[in-house]
Amino acid sequence: MKKRNCFIGQSGGPTAAINASLAGIIAECIDTKQFDHVYGMINGIKGLLEHKYMDLLQNFNTLEKLDDLKHSPAMYLGSCRYKLPTYVEDSQTYDLLFQTFEKLNITDFYYIGGNDSMDTVAKLSQYASIIKSPIRFIGIPKTIDNDLMGTDHTPGFGSAAKYVATSMLEVAYDSSIYKLNAVTIVEIMGRNAGWLTAASALARTKYNDAPDLIYLPEVPFIKENFLNDIREVFKKKRSVIIAVSEGIKTEDGEFLDSDSQYAKRDAFGHILHSGTGKVLETMVYKEFKCKVRSIELNVLQRCAMHIASKVDLDESFDIGRYAVKTSMTGKTGVMMVFNRVNNQPYTIECDFKDVSQIANMEQRIPIQWINKKHNDITKELYEYLYPLIQGEVNITYENGVPCYANIDHLKQD
Amino acid sequence: MKKRNCFIGQSGGPTAAINASLAGIIAECIDTKQFDHVYGMINGIKGLLEHKYMDLLQNFNTLEKLDDLKHSPAMYLGSCRYKLPTYVEDSQTYDLLFQTFEKLNITDFYYIGGNDSMDTVAKLSQYASIIKSPIRFIGIPKTIDNDLMGTDHTPGFGSAAKYVATSMLEVAYDSSIYKLNAVTIVEIMGRNAGWLTAASALARTKYNDAPDLIYLPEVPFIKENFLNDIREVFKKKRSVIIAVSEGIKTEDGEFLDSDSQYAKRDAFGHILHSGTGKVLETMVYKEFKCKVRSIELNVLQRCAMHIASKVDLDESFDIGRYAVKTSMTGKTGVMMVFNRVNNQPYTIECDFKDVSQIANMEQRIPIQWINKKHNDITKELYEYLYPLIQGEVNITYENGVPCYANIDHLKQD
Repeated sequence: MKKRNCFIGQSGGPTAAINASLAGIIAECIDTKQFDHVYGMINGIKGLLEHKYMDLLQNFNTLEKLDDLKHSPAMYLGSCRYKLPTYVEDSQTYDLLFQTFEKLNITDFYYIGGNDSMDTVAKLSQYASIIKSPIRFIGIPKTIDNDLMGTDHTPGFGSAAKYVATSMLEVAYDSSIYKLNAVTIVEIMGRNAGWLTAASALARTKYNDAPDLIYLPEVPFIKENFLNDIREVFKKKRSVIIAVSEGIKTEDGEFLDSDSQYAKRDAFGHILHSGTGKVLETMVYKEFKCKVRSIELNVLQRCAMHIASKVDLDESFDIGRYAVKTSMTGKTGVMMVFNRVNNQPYTIECDFKDVSQIANMEQRIPIQWINKKHNDITKELYEYLYPLIQGEVNITYENGVPCYANIDHLKQD
Repeated sequence: MKKRNCFIGQSGGPTAAINASLAGIIAECIDTKQFDHVYGMINGIKGLLEHKYMDLLQNFNTLEKLDDLKHSPAMYLGSCRYKLPTYVEDSQTYDLLFQTFEKLNITDFYYIGGNDSMDTVAKLSQYASIIKSPIRFIGIPKTIDNDLMGTDHTPGFGSAAKYVATSMLEVAYDSSIYKLNAVTIVEIMGRNAGWLTAASALARTKYNDAPDLIYLPEVPFIKENFLNDIREVFKKKRSVIIAVSEGIKTEDGEFLDSDSQYAKRDAFGHILHSGTGKVLETMVYKEFKCKVRSIELNVLQRCAMHIASKVDLDESFDIGRYAVKTSMTGKTGVMMVFNRVNNQPYTIECDFKDVSQIANMEQRIPIQWINKKHNDITKELYEYLYPLIQGEVNITYENGVPCYANIDHLKQD
């Protein structure tokens, strides 16, 4: 009988849950008994083009090892930021990839990632269709931004949301201790979509009503309204806590920090939008002359496995399993999605959609889920978010710190 | 029989463990059966001067409630930043305080805090001695900075250290995923003492050797050496992770960020040293033109109860209990301390020292615990730090976020 092997890759930015999806795919590959080899591309499709891959079944041959993988942050297989050219632009790259697939008897290709990764899945499956290759290409979504179309929510979002809510709660307690007027600004990731910033509202408990104000990139940021909002909160309390998305924009559509001295740039000169908190800090201080602090949650919000959402990790694992089940039925060119069957009790089912209908689009918060004053979320959005952060995970600790997977293979040349 | 009551206060900056010491004091007050009322000053000695206090036995009459308090971050009683004048400068303040003590039949006064709080304990006990008041004044240390003299370490430090080590580990995993040269700078609290920055070394596991470089305020920061250090690490790996104390200084003793555009100021115009990471980010980018990111752990390192150290919380509770036992023997004008009896197995005993010999001094890292290149810590320092972050705490979660104490009393006018 001819050998049957598959590839798994990870791409884009890390989340706490992306390894859970990898573990789910491997677990199902083992259970189906259909594959001789389950290869992992190292550093995504870019690594594959350099013939960098590893045999995953050797490393993950027990349930315990898969469970450890499920509870490791970042990306076990490494990532790449690589936009696959179209085959019209560059047919050589496609030739190279499909030669590799043929040489390794690849029948199924699983790619876990965000929008750019889904674009890769769409292009590869279209090319396979043209050359009549039988290889199935399946996309598994992940992003802390929750901005992929076609799915109720994305794997990885719930864990980031739980980190944001927990940190916001702890910051609110921290800010409560002094008897003086103070404004604390928490800057949260999300360039165009405010889902993660909205999740700060989950910090509200019977004893905590922070954040007092929430500013999202879906609606314009108006300085006068912002300062008035703070003034209103000061009438009721001393400590004002604000959640703000890094990507808030003025009415003219300008990022708030675009001409800021705090705007950071990456190695390619692209502005990294993470000076927004600092810009607001200065704005508030000038107006109120009170204690002001801005806190940037930074990458911690996407890698803090120690406070991951159990619902998120379990779903991310399940969607990985379901991706294999889906390709076994012969499907290709699809992205796995979640459908919310019910909210009380929260019930999700896995499904799939045509990836070409999903890739390169952006799912933002519907305007009716933002309050009229544009400084908070509605009850409907709260209820949408709430189930996604439920449950805590059991991390193994060794010597006082979490015990995460061996990623030495990512450090080699 | 005459009524016997006591006061407890908290002061200075918050830590994850300061409520554990409060819980320990209350628990022992209950067990001794010596007190009719255990009063908590609201917002420290400053609140007491305004007659703000509460009856703690009413709120914490069960072990379960005390356990919840032990696992709440920030400061249940609120804080103040207030330097008690000397009685020569201002005898009225002393008159007012001791009149309140007399009116309320106070026999024992417990004050949990850092250096300024120990100064308060020293002054009050000296004044009591002068006026022949029998009231006992006991200081219970706390600070994430670990910079109090006379004690092996301070309550609150271990939990902050565990947060720093865990976050550093997760940042290292996050930084491992791309195949490109990158420098990640993690800025950690500590203005003059580098203990917390040193604790980042506890992130090192069998699979992680980050941080690659550690810069402490105890030794001068030399730009050329810093850039050379990075160059050396780049010879071995792509992703360089750096832990840096906010308080590093040049050879001239200038804070690195003192003339920085990123230097923040508090409401009184005091520079808050937290632009150091940004200053280094620019420095590194100019030299290496690679991806550079700075991460400021900010207040999260002092309030993240969800990743507190069990050793720290248990010790903080115990030292609170021991404070009551100590005052019951008639001691006054002392600060409770830890003596390390043994390191393997780690064994601590509670003791006390004359607070006037301790207050207003600063315990920094001994120079022999910093490596010769001034870019890492020694094995001896690692072994000192290591026991303090052991063990995890069981936090109660409700609706996906931690369930912390009711602090509504801090929000009132």
